[in-house]
Amino acid sequence: MTSHGRRRLLFVAIVTGLMTVGLVLNQGSDSAATPSSAGAASPDPVLPSWNDGAARTAILSFVDRVTRAGGRGFVPPPARIAVFDNDGTLWSEQPMYAQLAFVIDRVRAAAPSHPDWAARQPFKAAIEGDLGTLAASGERGLLELVMATHAGSTTEEFERIVTDWIAGARHPKTGRPYTEMVYQPMLELLAFLRANGFKTFVVSGGGIEFMRPWAERVYGIPPEQVIGSSIRTKYEVRDNAPVLLRMPDMDFIDDKDGKPVGIHRHIGRRPIAAFGNSDGDFQMLEWTTTGEGSRLAMLVHHDDGEREVAYDRHSPFGRLARGLDEAASRGWVVASITRDWRTVFPATTPK
Amino acid sequence: MTSHGRRRLLFVAIVTGLMTVGLVLNQGSDSAATPSSAGAASPDPVLPSWNDGAARTAILSFVDRVTRAGGRGFVPPPARIAVFDNDGTLWSEQPMYAQLAFVIDRVRAAAPSHPDWAARQPFKAAIEGDLGTLAASGERGLLELVMATHAGSTTEEFERIVTDWIAGARHPKTGRPYTEMVYQPMLELLAFLRANGFKTFVVSGGGIEFMRPWAERVYGIPPEQVIGSSIRTKYEVRDNAPVLLRMPDMDFIDDKDGKPVGIHRHIGRRPIAAFGNSDGDFQMLEWTTTGEGSRLAMLVHHDDGEREVAYDRHSPFGRLARGLDEAASRGWVVASITRDWRTVFPATTPK
Repeated sequence: MTSHGRRRLLFVAIVTGLMTVGLVLNQGSDSAATPSSAGAASPDPVLPSWNDGAARTAILSFVDRVTRAGGRGFVPPPARIAVFDNDGTLWSEQPMYAQLAFVIDRVRAAAPSHPDWAARQPFKAAIEGDLGTLAASGERGLLELVMATHAGSTTEEFERIVTDWIAGARHPKTGRPYTEMVYQPMLELLAFLRANGFKTFVVSGGGIEFMRPWAERVYGIPPEQVIGSSIRTKYEVRDNAPVLLRMPDMDFIDDKDGKPVGIHRHIGRRPIAAFGNSDGDFQMLEWTTTGEGSRLAMLVHHDDGEREVAYDRHSPFGRLARGLDEAASRGWVVASITRDWRTVFPATTPK
Repeated sequence: MTSHGRRRLLFVAIVTGLMTVGLVLNQGSDSAATPSSAGAASPDPVLPSWNDGAARTAILSFVDRVTRAGGRGFVPPPARIAVFDNDGTLWSEQPMYAQLAFVIDRVRAAAPSHPDWAARQPFKAAIEGDLGTLAASGERGLLELVMATHAGSTTEEFERIVTDWIAGARHPKTGRPYTEMVYQPMLELLAFLRANGFKTFVVSGGGIEFMRPWAERVYGIPPEQVIGSSIRTKYEVRDNAPVLLRMPDMDFIDDKDGKPVGIHRHIGRRPIAAFGNSDGDFQMLEWTTTGEGSRLAMLVHHDDGEREVAYDRHSPFGRLARGLDEAASRGWVVASITRDWRTVFPATTPK
């Protein structure tokens, strides 16, 4: 993909995100720790937030297979690589990507030092929360916002900015910190896989440096196991103190057919388990399940308008169409939030 | 750095490498498992191939400091990141980079399907082992060789090619497999750090996919902890079987000021220990030791013409000048192979 093509992909994603905000704000809200009406299985120490059903059974049987020494499906621990999409798979992506809220907040925070922004688009629209005008500013406008908010700092400054933001920001519908808008069943799945010798990775279209500062605390995934989209950095020594400067150039877009590329770049071997929720994850699941030996792929299907938000093939944001069409023939598990998840969000802040 | 600039850097490195082959072939050879004449310390279960001395003491005291719970120098295990250069630090880089021998062998292996190469430069020179003509072919000629040997295959095909080559290739001076031309004291250091909760990474100017196929077996370092130079890959589905195609474009040069960039890209936090041997590692050691808290940086000094090859500031290949000049003022340890290593190469194949 050309550099232009990559930029285009990024901004198409952001624009469609913006355009969907209005649609999704009207949809159902979450409810924390409310048992699903469907399936009231007895408590179980393994994956307690998953109801008994096809999805939970598929996970348990896969893990049993790969860990059974001497069995035909056995996979030695170093090859037990599991990859997880982030937005919509590990945490909420509605009513908009958390990173989009971050971009808007960053523009607002920087506005006092940029008095011209009050009258200059697309900054004016971001400051005023005018999503329609933002979307209308197109790729060029959004490129300007992303580069104004994500580049120009050192990597350590940016890490502090993200850390401070994630501590104070609140989800617009629930008022909870974004780090509490994570899916309890997926937290349990991450821990269960790790307890069985798996190494767990995040593989997200979102910014790698937007996730690393909190992924270890929230998901138990260290920075070196976070893969995402990135901008270029440059090493520079300032008064004997070296820094890595964040440059206004895209380096890599970790989405769609970029996901297997990012996985290969960072991990260097094919995962044996992949978890996603949208067609942006299709190639990651395809790459995972076309390898030899034991494989597991799962799509989280957002079908619960009561406890979360119901969206799939008609949502331009986190759209899931091809995945639903081909899951059965490819042997991919579709986990229904309504049926398969006893709990959606954790009752309290993950430690 | 521009794409052109990156390419230039790579080929400057290869050209200087080629030009040095002649020089270095005349220098001293290795001898396996021969005790150093200097320092005859009693056997010790920790780092047995290191003689008692400043280098060994610096390692032991650093590890004691970072692992002592409650101490001022304590570093929690997730932050115990140690990075190692490869060529000249973990294995021999003389009389030429193993990867350069690989390029030449690959041209020879492919020559029968390219009858025109017998009369066409720079392929003719590679086939004939005419290093002078190869060097004279310049960047353009060497680019042609690298892309002819490293691109055009899928990632899985390339992995098999490297695996087969490394199993059969022999070091031109010693006749041993390249995977036995590794430094026994450094193998012990890798294991010692891991036993103390460190995560060990290779950070090399060499090709990432040239190292990954054997780094786990030889160094105990899994593919996801290998960082190196890379070419671009592209995801493509062929008859329902996806592949990652290796494209004839440089993606990243992991050398000099590229090393901190590669470290940040892959690891996302600053290492606390770094090991190198040339000025190509300078910025990696600088980046490591300018962080806060306990830090260790070490340069392996190739000063043993009897048991290995003596080279440093006048070698255009693995050149070490600035590092020697600034090590003392920066608190970096210089490990002398003559004085500090009881053994250079392992007596037998590492498991």
